[in-house]
Amino acid sequence: MKPIYPAFIDEPSRPDIIVSMDIRGLGEFGLIERIAKIVGAVPDDKLVLGIGDDAAVWMDGGDVYLVTTDSMVQDVHFSFQDATWHELGWKALAINISDIAAMGGIPRYALISLCLPPDTEVYLIDELCYGFKEIDDEFHIQIIGGNISSAPVVIINVTIFGTAPSGLLTRSTAVAGDLIAVTGYLGQSAAGFTMMKSGIKFNHQISSYLKNAHLRPQPRVIEGQILVKNGIKTAIDISDGLLSDIRHVARASGVAARIWADKLPIHHNVKQSFGEEFLKFALSGGEDYELLFTGSPAIMNKVSNIMSTKITVIGEIVQGNAGDIALLDMNGRIMEFNNSDWEHFKANKQ
Amino acid sequence: MKPIYPAFIDEPSRPDIIVSMDIRGLGEFGLIERIAKIVGAVPDDKLVLGIGDDAAVWMDGGDVYLVTTDSMVQDVHFSFQDATWHELGWKALAINISDIAAMGGIPRYALISLCLPPDTEVYLIDELCYGFKEIDDEFHIQIIGGNISSAPVVIINVTIFGTAPSGLLTRSTAVAGDLIAVTGYLGQSAAGFTMMKSGIKFNHQISSYLKNAHLRPQPRVIEGQILVKNGIKTAIDISDGLLSDIRHVARASGVAARIWADKLPIHHNVKQSFGEEFLKFALSGGEDYELLFTGSPAIMNKVSNIMSTKITVIGEIVQGNAGDIALLDMNGRIMEFNNSDWEHFKANKQ
Repeated sequence: MKPIYPAFIDEPSRPDIIVSMDIRGLGEFGLIERIAKIVGAVPDDKLVLGIGDDAAVWMDGGDVYLVTTDSMVQDVHFSFQDATWHELGWKALAINISDIAAMGGIPRYALISLCLPPDTEVYLIDELCYGFKEIDDEFHIQIIGGNISSAPVVIINVTIFGTAPSGLLTRSTAVAGDLIAVTGYLGQSAAGFTMMKSGIKFNHQISSYLKNAHLRPQPRVIEGQILVKNGIKTAIDISDGLLSDIRHVARASGVAARIWADKLPIHHNVKQSFGEEFLKFALSGGEDYELLFTGSPAIMNKVSNIMSTKITVIGEIVQGNAGDIALLDMNGRIMEFNNSDWEHFKANKQ
Repeated sequence: MKPIYPAFIDEPSRPDIIVSMDIRGLGEFGLIERIAKIVGAVPDDKLVLGIGDDAAVWMDGGDVYLVTTDSMVQDVHFSFQDATWHELGWKALAINISDIAAMGGIPRYALISLCLPPDTEVYLIDELCYGFKEIDDEFHIQIIGGNISSAPVVIINVTIFGTAPSGLLTRSTAVAGDLIAVTGYLGQSAAGFTMMKSGIKFNHQISSYLKNAHLRPQPRVIEGQILVKNGIKTAIDISDGLLSDIRHVARASGVAARIWADKLPIHHNVKQSFGEEFLKFALSGGEDYELLFTGSPAIMNKVSNIMSTKITVIGEIVQGNAGDIALLDMNGRIMEFNNSDWEHFKANKQ
């Protein structure tokens, strides 16, 4: 998941030093690539996808299984100044469920690995568990195991398994001519985070809307199922930020993409509260946990008619250098943007 | 896994305070029980075992799947003064593979969640990965996914899936009349740890033997397979310590147990190096990652004849209060022992 409290990523990277380079020099994605080269599984007749998509995928006896894991680290991904333990429980599972949803899967079992400072009060762990339970009940997930360790800060690592009975959504299947669409609204998690960190006051309705957007993301499992059942092949969940995540898709698919800035779905609660920043939030705020997906105009039309959740077409896949993303204004002119999407460890964003 | 560097568990528990009690008051196992009551899955027609054994178990289309997760936290479970990153990579996977072995399973896929301080050198992560790769190759495991976050200390969380094509070994199936046996030797991991922490010097052969015992445990996958294929139903891996782990079995099975102290398999490298402490190491040192299993005398005899790995009968299951463990000397007299097995968070051991 995207780090929102960059407490440990504020030093410059050192790309000039090769023999002795710390992991900030590679950045999160560079490090993952490096690790995958050494230990990453090579897909075979059972393993469909290893490292590199929202979840790993294998097949057994005709069934398709998915698994994904993600962590929330205190003072990196969350702060107890902003989040209750209950909210933390919800979100730690939500961000993983979202990865299963983005693969076209249905979540089923969860394992939870907790690192806790020993002076943590028991009633707080109860609260955390009721947060787990609330989202588990909503998405029919069973917690089947886990692990507890002591540690200097709170870390919640969740692993979720699911199945994909209706097919897969992957990052690598976008083709030129596809439209790009998203579910829901963009940028409101970042708006909620900014509101809480800055101490800006809004009225109660806006304030709780933005806070919920950040702390209680709604994984798009039902929406993912509708997509996969209606011919969509390509999706990702927006965790790192729209531009970063569409780049993941474009790179994996070997295509380029154009995003139409004026089409981005931004809720009026965000627009009216953050006059100048809302576009930045939508483009690179991240943690929206909406689905970004691509498909032919005909399939997009069909899906739009079926889905009750808001869907917005925000751009198109085009031929070009793999991973090239152009942001266009309402007149079709290329806009400059500061690609400030987050990446773990990396200070100089690429 | 058992914490070996109790940096955060040195304050007394506060059982007298109910409303405000920190997790040390409950201890690791009490906390797990409490969490399981709130969120633990109830086994159904697919879920065979949830929280409470070495791994969770579910069935799908006649196949039996296992999953387990465990963490290694810097300065709680390991120290870079003692372990290289390569050794850490080996051990982080080994302790999880051991849980699959103890269920009678064959490990297959791994997910690795890394928490790393941002100033970690890239070549150290390479070393870690070569440690992962060495044990993966030996046990034919594929790393199919994971996650990287920044954090103030190094934490390696591993999730391993396996299958159990030949049946299951669980904690809850021991019956009065069973003999209790273990693979390999006991107490040498604790001896290695003590050697490294105390700075005691031994000759090179003993020193590297003990260090390896602590840092490069050998999961007993082949042995687990032999056990399950020959009628053994009950097993656990010795991670918390012999007494603690036999108590887990006895409690889950609703039986008592007698351990014959003079029968414990303790390697001469440990006996000759730690004259007075070797029994304590064997009883409560933990982290041996040997299999402890129970079975009828006839099955034990059969297994002993088949297995090339050393097996030692060390006691018997008897009727009695669930979880009562008696330690007997060579004359059959009950020995007092300080049950100093580790438990996360809990300062006053039960």
